[in-house]
Amino acid sequence: MVHAEASTFAAGQSKAEVYAQVLEQAAALFEGQRNWVCNLANTSSLLYHALLSLPSPSNAVNWCGFYTVDPQNPNQLILGPFQGHVACQAIPLGRGVCGTAAAKGETLVVRDVEEFPGHIACDAASRSEIVVPVVQEGRVVAIIDVDCAEVGGFDGVDKEKLEELAGLIAASSDF
Amino acid sequence: MVHAEASTFAAGQSKAEVYAQVLEQAAALFEGQRNWVCNLANTSSLLYHALLSLPSPSNAVNWCGFYTVDPQNPNQLILGPFQGHVACQAIPLGRGVCGTAAAKGETLVVRDVEEFPGHIACDAASRSEIVVPVVQEGRVVAIIDVDCAEVGGFDGVDKEKLEELAGLIAASSDF
Repeated sequence: MVHAEASTFAAGQSKAEVYAQVLEQAAALFEGQRNWVCNLANTSSLLYHALLSLPSPSNAVNWCGFYTVDPQNPNQLILGPFQGHVACQAIPLGRGVCGTAAAKGETLVVRDVEEFPGHIACDAASRSEIVVPVVQEGRVVAIIDVDCAEVGGFDGVDKEKLEELAGLIAASSDF
Repeated sequence: MVHAEASTFAAGQSKAEVYAQVLEQAAALFEGQRNWVCNLANTSSLLYHALLSLPSPSNAVNWCGFYTVDPQNPNQLILGPFQGHVACQAIPLGRGVCGTAAAKGETLVVRDVEEFPGHIACDAASRSEIVVPVVQEGRVVAIIDVDCAEVGGFDGVDKEKLEELAGLIAASSDF
């Protein structure tokens, strides 16, 4: 298979169908490959192109990627592979949407980032955000972070499917 | 500074001006930050958006990122941070444009990938390619890989400036 086709999503599919393709393709790409940088790099591409293929507000995705717990300093997250514009290099645990989700070990769906206390604006264009922890052996090792240029970009389907994706990543990658 | 602005490039600049901005922004982003995943992730974003801001053929960039020497197997390259569609996870040293540039430790500018013996087609849309080794203490640790959907997408300016960028990455990041 030409790998690029894995991240080509037909228009007109439902969000559930598109996430099913993301999960199927991610599982195939992780087979025999446990390197976390490689797996997160391809996953950020899959997810970004999946969301771009959907109707509004999903196609207003403007950043999609990962932060991991910094091996040099476990009190902060450090930027991992992503798709989109340049992003903040490090985020203290407990700060902003990413740091709060990582500290709590739970998914945060933020309808309007401007109403989130202590929001860190890496990109002023971002208006809503979902952050999903990747938990391995009871420990947060990374987060999935997706930003949208529209308010209310994420719903219960995004939460459910991104949590499934986080579980797949945790089971398939050595951090 | 809102970080996303670092990868916003004004239209109408020359290629040399755009690369000067890439080098300046990369140096600023690397200051106080030696984590290679973080630095390559932001650099792939900078470079991708820089090329998109230029006239044809540069704006036909369709993949921009990095492979590193696989810590688990030094005879192969493994996928690092990138912007674009899903890519091949691993490339044996000496195979394809990336593997050949890494094995030789020298830049390859390929006018037409279909004429390159043993070309690995991660994406059938790619028609030309430049690969620049990142050399640290005399050893290739990574490569910069940029693909273009047009034949002849890269010239001597790309080669010179990407080699400068590779030097900056090597001096600024711990692999």
